[in-house]
Amino acid sequence: MKIIELAQIQELLSSVDLFSAIEAGFVSYSAGKAVIPPVGELLFQNPPGDVHIKYGYLLNDRYYVIKIASGFYENPTLNLPSSNGLMLLFDQKTGTPLATLLDEGYLTDVRTAVAGAIAAKYLAPKHIHRIGIVGTGIQARLQLQYLAKVIDCREAIVWGRNLDKAKQFQQTITGKFNIAVAQTIQELTSTCNLIVTTTPSTTPLVYADYVQPGTHITAVGADTPHKQELDSIIFAKADCVVADSVSQCMERGDIAHAIAQKLIMPESLTELGDVISGKAPGRTLDEQITVADLTGVAIQDIQIAKVLYEAACRKKMAASNMYQ
Amino acid sequence: MKIIELAQIQELLSSVDLFSAIEAGFVSYSAGKAVIPPVGELLFQNPPGDVHIKYGYLLNDRYYVIKIASGFYENPTLNLPSSNGLMLLFDQKTGTPLATLLDEGYLTDVRTAVAGAIAAKYLAPKHIHRIGIVGTGIQARLQLQYLAKVIDCREAIVWGRNLDKAKQFQQTITGKFNIAVAQTIQELTSTCNLIVTTTPSTTPLVYADYVQPGTHITAVGADTPHKQELDSIIFAKADCVVADSVSQCMERGDIAHAIAQKLIMPESLTELGDVISGKAPGRTLDEQITVADLTGVAIQDIQIAKVLYEAACRKKMAASNMYQ
Repeated sequence: MKIIELAQIQELLSSVDLFSAIEAGFVSYSAGKAVIPPVGELLFQNPPGDVHIKYGYLLNDRYYVIKIASGFYENPTLNLPSSNGLMLLFDQKTGTPLATLLDEGYLTDVRTAVAGAIAAKYLAPKHIHRIGIVGTGIQARLQLQYLAKVIDCREAIVWGRNLDKAKQFQQTITGKFNIAVAQTIQELTSTCNLIVTTTPSTTPLVYADYVQPGTHITAVGADTPHKQELDSIIFAKADCVVADSVSQCMERGDIAHAIAQKLIMPESLTELGDVISGKAPGRTLDEQITVADLTGVAIQDIQIAKVLYEAACRKKMAASNMYQ
Repeated sequence: MKIIELAQIQELLSSVDLFSAIEAGFVSYSAGKAVIPPVGELLFQNPPGDVHIKYGYLLNDRYYVIKIASGFYENPTLNLPSSNGLMLLFDQKTGTPLATLLDEGYLTDVRTAVAGAIAAKYLAPKHIHRIGIVGTGIQARLQLQYLAKVIDCREAIVWGRNLDKAKQFQQTITGKFNIAVAQTIQELTSTCNLIVTTTPSTTPLVYADYVQPGTHITAVGADTPHKQELDSIIFAKADCVVADSVSQCMERGDIAHAIAQKLIMPESLTELGDVISGKAPGRTLDEQITVADLTGVAIQDIQIAKVLYEAACRKKMAASNMYQ
């Protein structure tokens, strides 16, 4: 079994085409060509933490993947990051373990950012005048980094609950973007036509009143039943609501709240893979409002693990022959 | 993270007290001190295979454990064993990955055999005149190996569906046991007062008519809803029916069949951990018939992974400092 460590993963990431892999994954998932059981969950009280096990495979593929991702929110008091985790890749025909990607949770961040960029690529209006980033963490940074690969706009504005953190975030975004700091979330909402929300908020941050016609919003922060970043009225106002996984979004994330409030019907949801494949229309007019709710699907983990493993095999970069 | 390979695991096994660890695990589990979510399952059609993810933790312990075990039943045609798998050990306070035990499924075999020996230790009659082993695979061999640590009797008889394989099995049991080959399962059932069934059968093998008073039976083979090794009437005839996990045995294994046929009531079941702790009586008279149905509980995986990891830390035997 190959052991691929974080430094090697980061090096490999620059050489692989994550967009093609993850887009293909979403298309297969929406076409019913993936087997993705319900997420396994392990909860801890003292200290508080949660572990999610996402796993599955593409039919007629070479692999199956099991991802373990943890969040222990008091870790920063120990000078440890909250998130950790790893991905395991196995041979679909024999069960043989092929690789452990010791990514420390980083690939979850990356595949989430890539999905955000994919949503923008397929759903954003043609001309984006300003990108609004809600949140100031690693996901906020990665969303901008991957959006830059598919969107020409280099004007951005960031809002965070903590103004100092927003200013720090502004400092870290060097070069590519001309980035402002929003004093209020309304300033961001009313001046951007591509908005990405990346927070663990449990109360709405972005309100429908301020969302302009011709805006696309991607919400990636809410991945549990309790989290919520978008005012549910946004969904009623939207012309097209896209879920990474319809079944998963009916149980967790922003769409789940809008459905519970009967502001949208499950039948009106479109799945991202169907937009990518062209099976579903997505945005049809520039003045429409579109919303993508991304709760994170194992198909993304499968695809990112797979391309990295194959890249490592090509480059023979795995840690040591001892484990091959 | 420590990577502990099979050869090292096998070396470490001789230096650890698996009985104490797994008995303590069962006691804690039955006392409600373990968090064990439902088993995750991934099924494959072409070629047929199944993967089980068992995971959980003991409250106030240092670790949580995730075990991945696969069975791909056409592997022998590729000169590969059907079973494979690994165990992952994490820090319960931070989510930090601590160790990967690349046991290739061996620890699942071992912890199953240890549980069988524990069941015999607590439930078998005082004097055992002959041990009957149903099945001729690795689990049959390991059951004898671990029974020898808790039972004085060295007379044994083996039965297998394939007589040649039973004879081969007889050859592999050297030294410790005087082992015969049964021509019929009835010969085994009627001459033994400790019987262990270790097959993947989906139809009953051991019938109630032949079970003698004063016999203990441990069934370890049936771990899915469809598998069955014991005639359900045995459960009606038994004085004491013990499950490794009452909740799990109500859904899978031999007990599930007996409950479905209303031959026993769920309320009459005793959990192994309660027998070990003395909270439940188990066998009270030598002439009683007792049955233990072991479907395999994550608590066994947690405990075996834990003692091996701690032994590896003591012996500094992990593969390479590179991964620590």
